[in-house]
Amino acid sequence: MTNIYNFSAGPAVLPKEVLAQAAAEMLDWQGSGMSVMEMSHRGPEFISIYRAAERDLRELLAVPDNYKILFMQGGGLSQNAVIPMNLIGNGDATIDFVQTGSWSSKSIKEAARYAKVNVAATAKDNGYTFVPPQSEWKLTPGAAYLHLCTNETIDGVEIDFVPTAQGATTLVADMSSHILSRPVDVARYGVIFGGAQKNIGPAGVTVVIVREDLLGKAVPYTPSAFDFKNVADNESMYNTPPTYGIYIAGLVFQWLKRQGGVAEMERRNIEKAALLYAALDADDFYQNRVQKEYRSRMNVPFYLRDESKNEAFLAGAKERGLLQLKGHKSVGGMRASIYNAMPIEGVQALVDYLNEFAGR
Amino acid sequence: MTNIYNFSAGPAVLPKEVLAQAAAEMLDWQGSGMSVMEMSHRGPEFISIYRAAERDLRELLAVPDNYKILFMQGGGLSQNAVIPMNLIGNGDATIDFVQTGSWSSKSIKEAARYAKVNVAATAKDNGYTFVPPQSEWKLTPGAAYLHLCTNETIDGVEIDFVPTAQGATTLVADMSSHILSRPVDVARYGVIFGGAQKNIGPAGVTVVIVREDLLGKAVPYTPSAFDFKNVADNESMYNTPPTYGIYIAGLVFQWLKRQGGVAEMERRNIEKAALLYAALDADDFYQNRVQKEYRSRMNVPFYLRDESKNEAFLAGAKERGLLQLKGHKSVGGMRASIYNAMPIEGVQALVDYLNEFAGR
Repeated sequence: MTNIYNFSAGPAVLPKEVLAQAAAEMLDWQGSGMSVMEMSHRGPEFISIYRAAERDLRELLAVPDNYKILFMQGGGLSQNAVIPMNLIGNGDATIDFVQTGSWSSKSIKEAARYAKVNVAATAKDNGYTFVPPQSEWKLTPGAAYLHLCTNETIDGVEIDFVPTAQGATTLVADMSSHILSRPVDVARYGVIFGGAQKNIGPAGVTVVIVREDLLGKAVPYTPSAFDFKNVADNESMYNTPPTYGIYIAGLVFQWLKRQGGVAEMERRNIEKAALLYAALDADDFYQNRVQKEYRSRMNVPFYLRDESKNEAFLAGAKERGLLQLKGHKSVGGMRASIYNAMPIEGVQALVDYLNEFAGR
Repeated sequence: MTNIYNFSAGPAVLPKEVLAQAAAEMLDWQGSGMSVMEMSHRGPEFISIYRAAERDLRELLAVPDNYKILFMQGGGLSQNAVIPMNLIGNGDATIDFVQTGSWSSKSIKEAARYAKVNVAATAKDNGYTFVPPQSEWKLTPGAAYLHLCTNETIDGVEIDFVPTAQGATTLVADMSSHILSRPVDVARYGVIFGGAQKNIGPAGVTVVIVREDLLGKAVPYTPSAFDFKNVADNESMYNTPPTYGIYIAGLVFQWLKRQGGVAEMERRNIEKAALLYAALDADDFYQNRVQKEYRSRMNVPFYLRDESKNEAFLAGAKERGLLQLKGHKSVGGMRASIYNAMPIEGVQALVDYLNEFAGR
């Protein structure tokens, strides 16, 4: 069979080595006689798995000691409610947002149910093809926090700078779809969060990295299982955590370390993205509409000039083992997500097909 | 190596056949070239897995057509907040509870953050060794609902009747630790919920079975990902669902059907529980404190008369491949959880050891 390359935006491709190890250990984890799925979350076996995952993620992202790493449930979307609940306090809070695409828009809509929201800047009128420059952000003095989606999975827009315009206001970043793809200066953020199902592991695990001084301020109606302080104080075991997903995430972290960590991932991701965008830009057969300096290294949406060929394009791709290239239903077209676990051979196979289909 | 039998209260033992199939399909689900973990939740492959799981669970529990089955995240504990949010409406609601052990107590504490709670009856003063008779329940006219934990995982108390004392008040049942262990008349309940990690599958999946007329009444601060109506309207894909956990749950449902469904499970569970309780009751070396008619078929807590022998008991058990028998930290002693996936051979092995250790 042809090599299969899976370009899904998430849940997404995982390293083959990780899946092979998970398969081999499925019925008996390291001589314990148990599958990881069968272990009590409070037993020594799972505790060791949990602590290794936490430690490895802390090392990979150089998370400072005054930050807690939480493994939660509910996905990035649930955090759109959980973060306001944890951060707005009991006063008359305003949350600032920069609207750069579909996911920041969802965050805005949800946050408006809990606090006043201020859209400090938006790229909506331009179809989310760039990041509004900081000089144009209309920020709120005393805002509870400024929320950014640093990589818009659907729109393919990436914020590759840490803002300074917000001054002392706490930064909250939804990094779901590019976490671990590049180094990040965690100390510049109050909260970093992400659903696991892109660069971390299976859907159902949500990683939250939160500065300790932000804990303990949840509004009274916060479900106790989603109060960051409860989760932090109980090493993510206030509630039974998604144990198997955390185990897989831990295997992914070990794989990342073997590859050379996020610095090496960034090098590869730059190379993969450059290869793919070059093929899309070669002529006007394909089109990516995002301004070049804001193009995502992870999610590459593109359109065929002649959209009547969409079905033929997808069918031909599938024949060649290039899977899940259909764009998100809200924007149409195509999308290639090229996360950490996508090897350059997969991107090259896609580029070969792009050239072939365009008759180049 | 000796056979291993895992008596964990949850996450807990899974059928070997299920784990073997999951291992075999880990890198390539049915020729798709993808792991289930790597599939888009909106693609045809995962949709087929999801729908089969939903259909099989509906068949196994004979869920009527006017009930929705939701696959959510957050565990049973999160539902202690999510259910009030969805059911109390905007008025001045009271929730009735029958307090039968640790889990109903947690539900009471969490619900009190959202509404008035009325403990209609409690077995607390008796150390949670029985279910207060319905004739003594002091119910609230017009209560939003009556909440029961029909099997107390920590205390080993099971409610084996459907109450009638509440009249027209909606019944809500936390069935986390005995769902699928016996037939249930779903139509008598408004909501049935449970964390998956006992009889369903891996931790991180939460099953909610809700009558349709209860949808659409969530209070305004309900996170949209936890509004039952949003989840129901989107076939549990309002948010990215915990796809791999749902896949494993689906394999468990298929396994249950092959075994003969919940009627056959009940037959086996009665047999297993009888065997174990008989060994505990044989003399006063061991003690289970729950009144016989309320003893759980799933979770069997017990104490050694001479608790100084606890460590020796656990060490000997482990040598014989009898794992995770230590009781919950809040009550001490021992606990054997004998869920659907525990074969009678495992219970027999435990009984043999109980007799041996007691010098019988």
